[in-house]
Amino acid sequence: MQHHLGPNVPLIGIEGGRAKLSTPALTLDLASAQKNIQAMMGHCQRTNQSLRPHAKSHKASAIAQRQVEAGALGICCATIREAETMVDNGIPGVLITSPITSEAKIDRLVALHQRAENLMVVVDDSLTVAAISTAHEKYGSHNQLALLVDFDVGLQRTGARDAHAARKLARCISDTEGLSFIGVQAYAGHLQHIEDFDKRFKQMAGQAERLRQAVSGLRTDGLAPKIITGGGTGTYDIDHRFNLFTELQAGSYLFTDIQYNAVQLSPKSTQPFEPSLLVQASVVSTTHDSHAVIDAGLKSFATDGPTPELFDGAPSGAKYRFMGDEHGAVVYPAGVNERLKVGDMVSCLVPHCDPTVNLYDHYHCIEGDRLIEILPIDARGNP
Amino acid sequence: MQHHLGPNVPLIGIEGGRAKLSTPALTLDLASAQKNIQAMMGHCQRTNQSLRPHAKSHKASAIAQRQVEAGALGICCATIREAETMVDNGIPGVLITSPITSEAKIDRLVALHQRAENLMVVVDDSLTVAAISTAHEKYGSHNQLALLVDFDVGLQRTGARDAHAARKLARCISDTEGLSFIGVQAYAGHLQHIEDFDKRFKQMAGQAERLRQAVSGLRTDGLAPKIITGGGTGTYDIDHRFNLFTELQAGSYLFTDIQYNAVQLSPKSTQPFEPSLLVQASVVSTTHDSHAVIDAGLKSFATDGPTPELFDGAPSGAKYRFMGDEHGAVVYPAGVNERLKVGDMVSCLVPHCDPTVNLYDHYHCIEGDRLIEILPIDARGNP
Repeated sequence: MQHHLGPNVPLIGIEGGRAKLSTPALTLDLASAQKNIQAMMGHCQRTNQSLRPHAKSHKASAIAQRQVEAGALGICCATIREAETMVDNGIPGVLITSPITSEAKIDRLVALHQRAENLMVVVDDSLTVAAISTAHEKYGSHNQLALLVDFDVGLQRTGARDAHAARKLARCISDTEGLSFIGVQAYAGHLQHIEDFDKRFKQMAGQAERLRQAVSGLRTDGLAPKIITGGGTGTYDIDHRFNLFTELQAGSYLFTDIQYNAVQLSPKSTQPFEPSLLVQASVVSTTHDSHAVIDAGLKSFATDGPTPELFDGAPSGAKYRFMGDEHGAVVYPAGVNERLKVGDMVSCLVPHCDPTVNLYDHYHCIEGDRLIEILPIDARGNP
Repeated sequence: MQHHLGPNVPLIGIEGGRAKLSTPALTLDLASAQKNIQAMMGHCQRTNQSLRPHAKSHKASAIAQRQVEAGALGICCATIREAETMVDNGIPGVLITSPITSEAKIDRLVALHQRAENLMVVVDDSLTVAAISTAHEKYGSHNQLALLVDFDVGLQRTGARDAHAARKLARCISDTEGLSFIGVQAYAGHLQHIEDFDKRFKQMAGQAERLRQAVSGLRTDGLAPKIITGGGTGTYDIDHRFNLFTELQAGSYLFTDIQYNAVQLSPKSTQPFEPSLLVQASVVSTTHDSHAVIDAGLKSFATDGPTPELFDGAPSGAKYRFMGDEHGAVVYPAGVNERLKVGDMVSCLVPHCDPTVNLYDHYHCIEGDRLIEILPIDARGNP
């Protein structure tokens, strides 16, 4: 697939180019992102686990490439489309972290397996195991496809609900033609945003004990998992303390967002990751005294989380307010006389980063006042 | 720009193809959409106004083409990107309904004007008028660019705030080299979703009176507007009653959505438009007794409005619940024993249609159990 990098290409490398962007533009501070990549890699090396960061956050093969170059052993994907994009752009070690269950997507999965290096996928249902095996046979592949048992650690979304179900499913995989059982996934999505570290730790410890019993049962069955994968940015400094997980799936650490900025990620007080992701917008109207209007609204920010926060360009103390599909208000604080004019630029910290990124086609990579490069968000889109 | 129609292309025309779609897929019932196009066109003909439907809802030049073929005199666009896509796909009479204010986007505007048939744009600030004139001169065009004065009818987003400001701005446009004043826009976005018809009518009547006074002032100044445009799906059967508007901008009528289904659009009790837009999803997990999990979540539905509603495929009485970026739950009603299995398909009515469409790259046009064609949502994306 050919990528078109949008209308801002002529600004690459130009002094002051950042201030001239056609907006709304998703900007990525490459230096901060690179620091976050290194910080998480260093953490994983110190805690003796592998890093397979999640691409559902960034959806860009060019960023996955940088994570792999920094030492990640592969990449996690939430959808078959993300996995196809990563594989077809040379990213090894792709793990699909959601069950793939419909006939059409299972066909895409086994076709992808033919051209991938170490593709893996989670399952939580024996019907799916059978369907994958049938499709795998149809394609006549000699390479076994590696499956992980998805184990529910309290999220109640996907995953075998207890140790018994996990052992039964692992046996089913192991006994099925063309498939191999390689490990267990345990992702506690419901715990990632608990703001207090100790509270989050305690809840995760309870779930880790359930996982430990399931893993112990698998060992008893002669099905010792080679991979135990899970964790997000919220539990990145928790999961390794159980000596259980072999790898970490965190994704949001690359950007951080307003939600994760509120989470005490580590017992140490400092926030270990830097905000690297902003939405840059232009002022389009100033006809009211109380607020200016910018060109970033419901189609430019995720709306499932907190309200965007003004980061740069607006009077101190001003607040963002949604004003429809394409517009937001910069609401001036009382007593401040500074006013924006049409054409001025402001930047906003993003709410929930993953669905915000999903609204854009490109990262505008910036360094100081320059636009350095434009990276396609090549894995976005459905289905 | 070349369009890739995604992984479902091989299913076009195949019997039962709809049930085999890779999901989450945005589906469009073409017969219902076409009925809605005809119904709105008929309404405008009966009420003696022109229809220039808004492309911000559908963001697809192929759909704009069908609206024009049915009698629309052009298309409205919210962004310069939408306008570029429409013009470059042969759609005439493009009106940009938000001010274009930054230097980069004004350059794109005047460049677009060179290759467009009757491009128009709204303004609400004399700085912008001057900037457009400067850019227009730079390109050395001989064709005047037609501007409309955006007039605030209570939304407090964009638009001259009163008759005095509107008259001053119209004079400024009229006096500026290369530009012509062609009309007034008055869009009451804050009234569109008031559910009770009479309440909505009363509020709109008050704003229409303000608009009438502004228009009267413009006539006094020798600047009689040729175009008075506004209205949405919520006021489609209200605005024409004031004998003021020359054209209607409605967009959502094409799809309707959960929000508009709750609005009494007309004094007649029946809902004049049919729901034509659904999101089709697959069941990916059934490990819990209380609910099944489908592959459509925060990245597949707008989250600024109501919760998606299950339309087809799920047990009667089941409810949708968000379960993260890529997942939703089909929560079973008490006392119902019917259960979904992995790979089953369900369809959902969409919340706020515009930002939902913005998440997808294609319409999967369906007729009964068939996929008939795939239309690119070619005007989506930023900036």
